[in-house]
Amino acid sequence: MILYISVTVKQNKRIFLDYASATPIDPRVLSAMRPYLGGEFANPSALYEEGVEAGKTIGNARKKVAGIIHALPDEIVFTGSGTESDNLAIIGAFRQAKQEGIRAPHIIISSFEHPAILEAASRCAEEGAIVTYIKPDEEGIIHPESVKKALTPSTILVSVMHAQNEIGTIEPIKEIAKVLREFKKAKSQKLKAGSYPLFHSDASQTANYIPLNVLELHTDLLTLDGSKIYGPKGVGMLFVKRGIRLVPQILGGGQERGLRSGTPNVGAIVGFARALEIAEKERESESKRVTELRDLAIKRIMKMYPNATLNGSLQRRLPNNINFCFPRQDSEFLVLKLDARGYAVSSSSSCRTLKENSRSYVIDEIGKRGCGESSIRITLGRYTTKYELEGFLGALAHVLK
Amino acid sequence: MILYISVTVKQNKRIFLDYASATPIDPRVLSAMRPYLGGEFANPSALYEEGVEAGKTIGNARKKVAGIIHALPDEIVFTGSGTESDNLAIIGAFRQAKQEGIRAPHIIISSFEHPAILEAASRCAEEGAIVTYIKPDEEGIIHPESVKKALTPSTILVSVMHAQNEIGTIEPIKEIAKVLREFKKAKSQKLKAGSYPLFHSDASQTANYIPLNVLELHTDLLTLDGSKIYGPKGVGMLFVKRGIRLVPQILGGGQERGLRSGTPNVGAIVGFARALEIAEKERESESKRVTELRDLAIKRIMKMYPNATLNGSLQRRLPNNINFCFPRQDSEFLVLKLDARGYAVSSSSSCRTLKENSRSYVIDEIGKRGCGESSIRITLGRYTTKYELEGFLGALAHVLK
Repeated sequence: MILYISVTVKQNKRIFLDYASATPIDPRVLSAMRPYLGGEFANPSALYEEGVEAGKTIGNARKKVAGIIHALPDEIVFTGSGTESDNLAIIGAFRQAKQEGIRAPHIIISSFEHPAILEAASRCAEEGAIVTYIKPDEEGIIHPESVKKALTPSTILVSVMHAQNEIGTIEPIKEIAKVLREFKKAKSQKLKAGSYPLFHSDASQTANYIPLNVLELHTDLLTLDGSKIYGPKGVGMLFVKRGIRLVPQILGGGQERGLRSGTPNVGAIVGFARALEIAEKERESESKRVTELRDLAIKRIMKMYPNATLNGSLQRRLPNNINFCFPRQDSEFLVLKLDARGYAVSSSSSCRTLKENSRSYVIDEIGKRGCGESSIRITLGRYTTKYELEGFLGALAHVLK
Repeated sequence: MILYISVTVKQNKRIFLDYASATPIDPRVLSAMRPYLGGEFANPSALYEEGVEAGKTIGNARKKVAGIIHALPDEIVFTGSGTESDNLAIIGAFRQAKQEGIRAPHIIISSFEHPAILEAASRCAEEGAIVTYIKPDEEGIIHPESVKKALTPSTILVSVMHAQNEIGTIEPIKEIAKVLREFKKAKSQKLKAGSYPLFHSDASQTANYIPLNVLELHTDLLTLDGSKIYGPKGVGMLFVKRGIRLVPQILGGGQERGLRSGTPNVGAIVGFARALEIAEKERESESKRVTELRDLAIKRIMKMYPNATLNGSLQRRLPNNINFCFPRQDSEFLVLKLDARGYAVSSSSSCRTLKENSRSYVIDEIGKRGCGESSIRITLGRYTTKYELEGFLGALAHVLK
């Protein structure tokens, strides 16, 4: 007689260290969303009680978000994603400028923006824009001086991300904004709202760690993404300063002040607002906690692999970002070997992998030779523990052996 | 001594009869989505296990949806809403035609399309398109003959909704498609995929009740909306027949074959597929059940108010749509009085209310004088019972007294 014994090997718990690409929904966010996954489903445009209530719910979410970033409620436009917000900002501003009779509007962006910005700018170029790409320095910093030099009388828009999504470098947004204000002052005496050049920043990666006060950042347009702040996927936000006009991309019922038509996704909007609220509340303590973990890992990796070099700036760095170049190693191979050991990290930003090319254009842009295909990004998050990180460092040691 | 006694008056259960504007998420759909509201949150573009799994999950949802509408998986494009799908279809096809060197592309749409189509067509007109609006007859039917007469050698796109969202008239899509095929045959001998004019239909209102077989409908492009089929909000679909090229509106990471960038909303996509699956499975029985309720209500209203006239066709009518003109009554007032009695119905389509004008352009288009501001729409759904409908008819009697 043969006995078949089924043996279930308990898998080790998988460790997620790619929080820059996606965050889980915080249970507190899900809890806020729950009514809208059930009985509260009315269309906020309807005249009856449930519709009016849905409209109020969105209004309250808008107020909450506005309060956190120091904006006015009518400056908050809810969209379907961070990518959509970026597209609305870049293409919307460009088409508006064209409608105003500016023949060849000039746009300045950093050369290592997220693909949503890069591709939107390319579209504008196809439609007649002149686009200038500002190169970062070797630490990934976009210098305000470089932006200043690129400005022309026909510059209508400057877009620089709040922090680089792959290498974690925090950009000098306030300083770039100052350059733009001075430029505008020199151009005309009065600084009226919506005067060119507008300043946009994609802050999708920073909301968890850096204060997003638009009055201090002095941006005219600001992108946020629900799926990067422990909120739901399928919802983003664009801050549009009063007085600024954009040509909308998605037309129809005229929702979101005409800037984004379509039945509002009440539940996702409520979730977004709650997620931003939690991020803001826990920002300081969480930044401190995560920075310590990050620095521990950076120190240990540097000690273990003297050849490894940190990509991005050590000083001006997102608290949760670790990105190393391991010379002569293949990043994709490293990612897959770490995956096999239960650790999820990234070779470059997720968005780029789609082009079937895991080479990082970001690393190329900062001019680190031989690192474009030999770098990995480890991004920490709300649920990362020291224990997890120790485990990762152990796995990395095995993989690099 | 004074005793304050708090009396809670138990509110009567509210009755929702505006299923054309929004549907609740079916519990079976929510159940399918649940993993993606919790632990399964990875970015489908990531290389590691969780990312690959997320990618497979989307692939399976795509296959399921394709199977139901008799399309190929790569013909299914997931978007953020029905409105976005409509915009991508209309503006995307128009810009593609322009890129191909067609100077003044001609577009034909019905004059009472959803605002998403109307506004998208207006945008095309601003960018150089010639737009012809086909008037419906007094029952809301768009006659294939009218489309035939409007066709010109430069017609690149015809868009007629599968059923009118306010008055419920089912359009002769197959017959219009036939007219287009004959026109193409006359133009050139071979009918190659993607040849002009393309045919688009917004089927957001019909998925619950009418078979959506694209091989029989012969549309090149077809819109569906998650929030109208007891699925989640924030997800739509556009069927794009193989060989057809569209200029995308939202650019970035190149997801959805480059037609719709942005991190895919895995949970919403899974929910959409499950919702469509349930709709298809229950379509026949549910259509029968709802048609009976509808006919009962129509008969009763006609008997009770001999002055009232049914808007739309009695024969070619969505099973869940009741739309009556009550001469000399104000529709908004009726809606609010019914609301006070616990019944949620609509004065016109929800999307139009936003323009602070509850007058129905749809009723105006079918040429019913004095009815644009005196009509109400009652739309039944999956949870509507005869008991609820009887209650509504009673409330209507009170309100019209």
